Amino acid sequence: MISNPSEALAGIYQPINEELARVRRVFDDELASEWPFVGELCRHVSRFRGKMLRPALVLLSAKSCGPITREHITLAAVAELVHIATLVHDDVLDEGQIRRGLPSVNALRGNEGAVLLGDFLISHAFHLCSSLDSQYASRLIGSTTNTVCEGELLQVCQRNNCRLTEQQYFDIITRKTASLISTCCLLGAKFAGAEPAVITSFEAFGLNLGVAFQIIDDVLDVTGSEGEMGKTLGRDFEEGKITLSLIHLLQHGSPGDREEALHILSNGHLNRVARIRELVLRNDSLTHAIETARRYVRAALDNLADLPESEARRALTRMAGFVIRRRA
Amino acid sequence: MISNPSEALAGIYQPINEELARVRRVFDDELASEWPFVGELCRHVSRFRGKMLRPALVLLSAKSCGPITREHITLAAVAELVHIATLVHDDVLDEGQIRRGLPSVNALRGNEGAVLLGDFLISHAFHLCSSLDSQYASRLIGSTTNTVCEGELLQVCQRNNCRLTEQQYFDIITRKTASLISTCCLLGAKFAGAEPAVITSFEAFGLNLGVAFQIIDDVLDVTGSEGEMGKTLGRDFEEGKITLSLIHLLQHGSPGDREEALHILSNGHLNRVARIRELVLRNDSLTHAIETARRYVRAALDNLADLPESEARRALTRMAGFVIRRRA
Repeated sequence: MISNPSEALAGIYQPINEELARVRRVFDDELASEWPFVGELCRHVSRFRGKMLRPALVLLSAKSCGPITREHITLAAVAELVHIATLVHDDVLDEGQIRRGLPSVNALRGNEGAVLLGDFLISHAFHLCSSLDSQYASRLIGSTTNTVCEGELLQVCQRNNCRLTEQQYFDIITRKTASLISTCCLLGAKFAGAEPAVITSFEAFGLNLGVAFQIIDDVLDVTGSEGEMGKTLGRDFEEGKITLSLIHLLQHGSPGDREEALHILSNGHLNRVARIRELVLRNDSLTHAIETARRYVRAALDNLADLPESEARRALTRMAGFVIRRRA
Repeated sequence: MISNPSEALAGIYQPINEELARVRRVFDDELASEWPFVGELCRHVSRFRGKMLRPALVLLSAKSCGPITREHITLAAVAELVHIATLVHDDVLDEGQIRRGLPSVNALRGNEGAVLLGDFLISHAFHLCSSLDSQYASRLIGSTTNTVCEGELLQVCQRNNCRLTEQQYFDIITRKTASLISTCCLLGAKFAGAEPAVITSFEAFGLNLGVAFQIIDDVLDVTGSEGEMGKTLGRDFEEGKITLSLIHLLQHGSPGDREEALHILSNGHLNRVARIRELVLRNDSLTHAIETARRYVRAALDNLADLPESEARRALTRMAGFVIRRRA
């Protein structure tokens, strides 16, 4: 386990420090507003920009293939805008009150403010993307956000479905999380002038990494502490989101534990998160989820196997390790 | 007053009937989904596509300047997608339960479904727009939706502000409503190959028309009946939205009525909508709002004064009249 994720990431981001600073400036410039109210909300959002994982993936993928260009900086900021827009709207959906250790936008300004701010962010993401010379990135970002929305809608529609299969779970997380991460890696390689086969490898790397990332995110909702995670915990369960460890418990737990878990879930005993945690732990369901995530990370690393050795490539390898070992 | 708005519009739309049918097909194709849950929500949305005012403005502006192209059909569908996305998110904000006579998306699926469906629509709008050859429209639509979001945020921030000035009111409605209508007219002319000066005239026409449209929309919230309007009425007032007639009442009503209105508003007596309606009527505040809208419509018509006579141009003139006289 990594005890200090910011420190671990600082090391990984070392080859792209300067470029990440440029991304932050583009991000802030895009959101600058003459309206004090808008400005206040945007400053609030900037403070929880967080790990900058998606911009880092654009930049490291780029640097593994060639030079980092102005387009990469723009695209990295676009990816972060899209990501933060989904976080802000997730807060509306989830009624979560804490996000990255700060009050969430909806706790600060009500659901209204959060819906509008999320819209503002997504609009600026597309606007910024349209500033590039070609339509290529606009098309890919547009089709990616289509997919992300489908994943989120699919998740809502499968809420409280105790019969959710692993395949359906992967359908959801591939769309809602892995698709954007995959697009980041693809765009990094593409705009660095990589060959089509290399671009495809980066796309696959991002997809595998993104699936692993979401599995671990779901695991941390069960195991993490609120302080470490910087967001309200146990919420997946309370909202009826069926995650990988829960699917394992419901399908492979001991007969008694499966029955108890099913009873808790079908009767909406959503205050029983502590008990579910016990059941998940003693049936090795968390171990199953973590093992599955490890398999995806190994597949991601395989996708990069043919890439020449470089500082950026090593950083991507470390990033893949970070996804598994992080505690936040 | 126009007693049957659908009939009136059917007449106005006559020159572009065939093209509007193509817009509907592009709209439906863009939203087609392999997921039954998504498909169900989209079919629901398609049914309340409503007046198709924005697509009609793209097409009539185009036809007044030259031939309607494939790009116009795409852009008309984009404009309607953007518009419906804002309607769907407005329902989240407003907690309105009726929209165009049908249950609103949030009444059907909760706030979650409405937030996600709005995101899905806006994402598809940008995706569809990025299918065009040039970035021009993507940039303009992106900057327009930025402006729309600012207008909506500004409105939230001015809620219950009894000191809202007419200027601030116009700042809000110009951004949240007129900007998109203006963009529709601009794009129609631009993609028909019009000269820069003509394009600017169409942009100004749309801006003036859009301001008039929103003023009348706000008036109808006070005067209309729910059946006619097809949406929950009196909500602007209940939500603390200060509209033009209310500003007039608060600034120019008789001293006693001003005091009473201020008392009702500052004490949050939001169940007093009937009484506010009385005060607004007897202080000629509604008349002031309608007169103001008429001035904007006249300005809009002036913007088109130099345009050669044509069937499409006559339809735009009738559209301007419709905006003032409509009852829904």
